[in-house]
Amino acid sequence: MITLHTWTTPNGRKPVIMLEELGEPYRVVPVDIGKGEQFAPAFLKLSPNNKIPALVDDDADGGSITIFESGAILTYLAEKYGRLLAPAGAARWQTLQWLHWQIGGLGPMLGQLGFFAQQDDAFALDRFVKEGDRLLTVLDRQLAGSRYVAGEEFTIADIACYTWVAGAMDKLKGPLGDRLDKPDLQRWMALVGERPAVQKGMAWKIRN
Amino acid sequence: MITLHTWTTPNGRKPVIMLEELGEPYRVVPVDIGKGEQFAPAFLKLSPNNKIPALVDDDADGGSITIFESGAILTYLAEKYGRLLAPAGAARWQTLQWLHWQIGGLGPMLGQLGFFAQQDDAFALDRFVKEGDRLLTVLDRQLAGSRYVAGEEFTIADIACYTWVAGAMDKLKGPLGDRLDKPDLQRWMALVGERPAVQKGMAWKIRN
Repeated sequence: MITLHTWTTPNGRKPVIMLEELGEPYRVVPVDIGKGEQFAPAFLKLSPNNKIPALVDDDADGGSITIFESGAILTYLAEKYGRLLAPAGAARWQTLQWLHWQIGGLGPMLGQLGFFAQQDDAFALDRFVKEGDRLLTVLDRQLAGSRYVAGEEFTIADIACYTWVAGAMDKLKGPLGDRLDKPDLQRWMALVGERPAVQKGMAWKIRN
Repeated sequence: MITLHTWTTPNGRKPVIMLEELGEPYRVVPVDIGKGEQFAPAFLKLSPNNKIPALVDDDADGGSITIFESGAILTYLAEKYGRLLAPAGAARWQTLQWLHWQIGGLGPMLGQLGFFAQQDDAFALDRFVKEGDRLLTVLDRQLAGSRYVAGEEFTIADIACYTWVAGAMDKLKGPLGDRLDKPDLQRWMALVGERPAVQKGMAWKIRN
């Protein structure tokens, strides 16, 4: 059985959507980052960076495996089940380069934008608004030439980018304003948002 | 033949070190980011995010392939040549999770620290000094329990982390100070720094 230690953030929703896409059983252990549960010693053993999500797979090749970092988790699940990531060839690298682009660019920069949007630091806020807009423009331009992020097929790169753009549309409308209204970005958000697994993953809440 | 479009930055040195480790032939096309060459239309076609490095492999399966994002490039070369990344099992995911940790955490946060170290914004600088120190502490703690970043073997996760810590030791001593003097981090830097391929990659300069 796969256990996800996660929460309702963009990175935390990625493996939920992925497992819903795969149709594989999983259970969730909520890690309430509002209460600082990511700093509990038991969680640190799973995730040495004190961040969600972390995945434990008791049925991995060679026994149980624990993985942290949402991009590594998506790649692991894609390779384990042979879905949403080509095993070789140009399609594989299209997907992995855009996954890395989200992990190293879109995610951290929108994350900093979210932080500085709540601070009194106009200089830093302006920096991350501009960088966020630049990255959303790169994504929009990519989507002008292809149906999904990495080509004509839905892949883990779409899951990775979608949760962050959805988060920006939900929480960063103030600082980003009409910079979110990019035509191909919006077309793709609607297309991905129609998928039942994506809807389940985005609607997913921790039950108390 | 493999062509690297790159420059002398932490991300730019990663594929140089990797190709030196592999002992494979390659040529370099310098992209002088000091002169803004990453914004040239010809480079944008290779790297839609306008960032170095980008790799073109004319001898890929199925013809020529172009890949951007340093983490994707390291993974591509590791898989193509069957080196520095296990093909399956726990060792593979140890390596890929720490690679993702560098791509999504250590790199962007030290990058922002480098930017704000040259600005008049004490609030933001303090944020990135603290986050940089936190991440270096996570790495030091990981290295207290294993010889290399992802275990007892040298992998692409070491290449990815090394260039950024080396960059911090070179350029961020001012803001970071003795936060760089972590014992296992220093031990590992010395160990990795002994490798001829790493020395070549770090000494590599564009000849004018």
